[in-house]
Amino acid sequence: MLDKLESLRKLMRDNNIDAYVVPSGDAHASEYTADYWRTRPWISGFNGSSGTAVITTEKAGVWTDGRYFIQAEKELKGTGFDLYKEGEPNVPSFTEFLADNLPQGGTVGFDGRIVTAENFEKIKTALNKKSVTYFYKEDLIEKIWQDRPALPTAPAFEHAPNFAGKSATEKLATVRAKMKEKNITAYLLPALDDIAWLLNIRGRDTFGLPVVYSYVLITDTEAHVFIDPTKIPDLYAKLTFQGFTMHGYDTLPAFLNELKTTQLYYNPTNTNVLLTEAIPQDIQISNNATQDIVRNLKCIKTEVEIANIRNAFVKEGVVLVKTIKWLEETIATGKPLIEGDVVRTLQKFRAEQAHYISDSFSTISAHGANAAQAHYNSGAEGSSIKPDNFYLLDTGGNYLDGTTDTSRTFALCEPTEEMKRDYTLVLKGVIALSRTIFPNKTLGIALDAIARQSMWENGLDYKHGTGHGIGYCLSVHEGPQGISSRSTTVGLEAGMLLSNEPGIYKEGHYGIRTENVILVVENQKTSAGTFLSFETLTHCPIDTRAIDVAMLTEIERDWLNNYHSRTYETLAPHLNDEEKTWLKTKTATF
Amino acid sequence: MLDKLESLRKLMRDNNIDAYVVPSGDAHASEYTADYWRTRPWISGFNGSSGTAVITTEKAGVWTDGRYFIQAEKELKGTGFDLYKEGEPNVPSFTEFLADNLPQGGTVGFDGRIVTAENFEKIKTALNKKSVTYFYKEDLIEKIWQDRPALPTAPAFEHAPNFAGKSATEKLATVRAKMKEKNITAYLLPALDDIAWLLNIRGRDTFGLPVVYSYVLITDTEAHVFIDPTKIPDLYAKLTFQGFTMHGYDTLPAFLNELKTTQLYYNPTNTNVLLTEAIPQDIQISNNATQDIVRNLKCIKTEVEIANIRNAFVKEGVVLVKTIKWLEETIATGKPLIEGDVVRTLQKFRAEQAHYISDSFSTISAHGANAAQAHYNSGAEGSSIKPDNFYLLDTGGNYLDGTTDTSRTFALCEPTEEMKRDYTLVLKGVIALSRTIFPNKTLGIALDAIARQSMWENGLDYKHGTGHGIGYCLSVHEGPQGISSRSTTVGLEAGMLLSNEPGIYKEGHYGIRTENVILVVENQKTSAGTFLSFETLTHCPIDTRAIDVAMLTEIERDWLNNYHSRTYETLAPHLNDEEKTWLKTKTATF
Repeated sequence: MLDKLESLRKLMRDNNIDAYVVPSGDAHASEYTADYWRTRPWISGFNGSSGTAVITTEKAGVWTDGRYFIQAEKELKGTGFDLYKEGEPNVPSFTEFLADNLPQGGTVGFDGRIVTAENFEKIKTALNKKSVTYFYKEDLIEKIWQDRPALPTAPAFEHAPNFAGKSATEKLATVRAKMKEKNITAYLLPALDDIAWLLNIRGRDTFGLPVVYSYVLITDTEAHVFIDPTKIPDLYAKLTFQGFTMHGYDTLPAFLNELKTTQLYYNPTNTNVLLTEAIPQDIQISNNATQDIVRNLKCIKTEVEIANIRNAFVKEGVVLVKTIKWLEETIATGKPLIEGDVVRTLQKFRAEQAHYISDSFSTISAHGANAAQAHYNSGAEGSSIKPDNFYLLDTGGNYLDGTTDTSRTFALCEPTEEMKRDYTLVLKGVIALSRTIFPNKTLGIALDAIARQSMWENGLDYKHGTGHGIGYCLSVHEGPQGISSRSTTVGLEAGMLLSNEPGIYKEGHYGIRTENVILVVENQKTSAGTFLSFETLTHCPIDTRAIDVAMLTEIERDWLNNYHSRTYETLAPHLNDEEKTWLKTKTATF
Repeated sequence: MLDKLESLRKLMRDNNIDAYVVPSGDAHASEYTADYWRTRPWISGFNGSSGTAVITTEKAGVWTDGRYFIQAEKELKGTGFDLYKEGEPNVPSFTEFLADNLPQGGTVGFDGRIVTAENFEKIKTALNKKSVTYFYKEDLIEKIWQDRPALPTAPAFEHAPNFAGKSATEKLATVRAKMKEKNITAYLLPALDDIAWLLNIRGRDTFGLPVVYSYVLITDTEAHVFIDPTKIPDLYAKLTFQGFTMHGYDTLPAFLNELKTTQLYYNPTNTNVLLTEAIPQDIQISNNATQDIVRNLKCIKTEVEIANIRNAFVKEGVVLVKTIKWLEETIATGKPLIEGDVVRTLQKFRAEQAHYISDSFSTISAHGANAAQAHYNSGAEGSSIKPDNFYLLDTGGNYLDGTTDTSRTFALCEPTEEMKRDYTLVLKGVIALSRTIFPNKTLGIALDAIARQSMWENGLDYKHGTGHGIGYCLSVHEGPQGISSRSTTVGLEAGMLLSNEPGIYKEGHYGIRTENVILVVENQKTSAGTFLSFETLTHCPIDTRAIDVAMLTEIERDWLNNYHSRTYETLAPHLNDEEKTWLKTKTATF
């Protein structure tokens, strides 16, 4: 690490750079990135998924949040980097650190590809009194990282018409109509899932998200795709035929520099500085993140998509039934079992299903206290799963016909009163949200408390949102819709897909989460307007062993029994007799 | 009206003004204004409380919303003003009208005192392509309105220490400490209730709101009050002694023009253009409406204030019991009764209570279908109250020790199934919100759905918010707290006072609303943080005759019975035997 730091500082001196910033992320603000983009782990040695390294001539630091303090402390030892614990008292943020350590008129460098326009604004605001020059057109790490992994080369493939429902030509026409409404003459798309949706292509470039590194630029008369041509041998002709002009992946900044247009839109949360700074000054910019056309179209699933998604959830239900049955039987044998075993078993059963691509995120397979840690990852091994506590499973798959995400918690031992109360409160939250009826375009924040009410009455709460949006054979975390306590400007509409996942976490003891995926559907039209409700798409038994029956109302009990009988009826045709018998017991009237 | 229009147009020609705008409102963005400020009704003939007149050389129009279409149509006949129905398809807003009718480089005039900085920004944005000059320093209406009412001259009075709890000196010190935290060196306060709170003065200058026309400017070392000195003969010396320098009411713009300071804060929602444009250019401005120091201090009621408020709600409870008893008995006699009679009876009973100042707003006394109209005002007469429908009463008083606001709906006939269902759904909403427990600083929007859930399940809803903030011997509508579906950035905290008022309105049939005032209190501290709940302050029986018992859960029924027994216990010591007997029946276990 010290060698790397010295090489970087030499380059900084050569370029008169006073501070170099290395954030996490790729050129598309993806949630997961290819190894090529792991510059911050490479330079600092800190491998957590979230963090920012800053190097000055004298100092070097890594900023990360509470989830990673222990890991970062260990990994940064001897690297020359100090750990800055974000959110702790008297710890400066990295921008405050820059403001304190930069000379007046100094230069700050970073790879312009991995800083979004939104974050660049924040940096500029924090340093506005320092008259800073920004060096962002070159990636200094590239010059010193000898064995840097290449960008992924796996070929992209078509998301076939029976899955996509609408052709890229149709989608392009819809986007152009929206552009016209908004007086936008050029629209820049850097988000990989937005591009995959628009072009009906999928790939294997980032973990969990089946997409291809690329950009798209749509004008009122043209449509340009910036992508490595060797990745789309089969699709090149088709996309060209559909009205797209193909360009090399790296050529967008130069193309933008020559662009002639009036009003260009980009989303500042996913468009990087190398792109935004390449846009000629005489082009008017609109960059309100809530006005992103493809983001707002993609989140409303079409009838074809919904039909496919229902199917994907049946397949995933089969996978879950097989896995949970296997898990219970294995535990019953008393044979040693570790958390990683469950991840492998899930993958094995998923691979048996049609149209499976990959897991949609790293499965959380967490025994006991492990489940109380946010973002726990057992890796290939993990802890033993013993019959002495709760066990939490949070997992999902990406199929060509849908993206799934399910959490279930299992009582592997006789639950205590506290365990039963907490488990039942989580279930009451799930049921309350599932049963809610609400006016069209109600904001997600207005529904969040419905899932939390029973917990709040007991002085309990969870720190995460109640529900995130979910993509269609795309990202398991998709915006803009969501149900959380954060203010949001997006109203819920029929066709949106969300998770419903209340939880309770007791540090050092256990974590409980029950998660279904819910689809917003029309409930009824009355003189007071259109009302919506949720249809639960997830088919997977909910463990009844830890339920405190006295805490459930009759309505809640009915809901659970109906959910279980629907689960059985839906999955039984796809199970063998032994599995059916097992599921019958697990979904028995309660 | 035509003469007035001609006189105004002559003045416009003399001053090269192409369009003159006359909005509603006073120089302090007050909800109710003194007659002096009724320039828009005077010039246009339209008397509704909300509307904007625009006069060009050729055209004249009044813009108002759906509540006033019928009234405006009638009142504008023959005035030379056209009615522009806001919100109707193809009706331009008044700014769109200006954009269409102004010549390039034209001049728009208005009285700078009655346009807020926020609204001026909206006008400027709408007209930004027209290179407009703004004429705002003179009030043209003043020059042609011969018999214009004078500004109110009623003397102000002290809000005595036993009511105010804290001295103006203490409050000033707290405000200055907050200013220092925010690096503000000067703070402009134009809102009359903010000033009344700070100075511990009250007055009778606007209907409903016991305040005095005045401004305050606080700097890090000085505090200036701009007020007609003849209105505070008794308070002049005291305020001077407390560190305030006194100035004439009209002298603030000139004073601002000479101001030497670094960072000035004003709230753009209540600060007028004549003031903001008088601020020297070299002073840095901060004007984020959510950062208003006094607004944010005033909304958290102190222990002394809360003790007084509890008392005011007991007195108001007595007033309501006497009034409702009288109402029922009068109806039983079969004697003719009109809506205005109830308003007078309320005022009579309030006047018997200690520390009564005035009603806190125009009582809504509404029989049958009248109650379905938002903002219905019976005036002195109104419709007959007959035993054939619901009757809705929404009323409140301002006492030196508190501001009250209560709504009750009475079944004067045998209710139909629909009436019972609707009445019970409203009650379920009130109870649900009353019982809620929630984390400290939960946003009001996150609780709004809790009051609506049962209605939504039945395809019903109401278009107003669930709860507004309430002042302390001040405005019955006080920000920034609120519980509604509009996004809000203010978290609820212990000490905030809100209304809890779900309703159902059936046009042409009836309106139902049940409203209590609730105080945010600490409920418990747990490892998950501080939890809050609501304490209901209103003591007034809720009519049980229209309740569909089968729709209530046991918990809801218990809540109502407890509420009623507390109401009886609290009010009985203040009632005579006959009233006690009556209340005993009305609060009997149900």
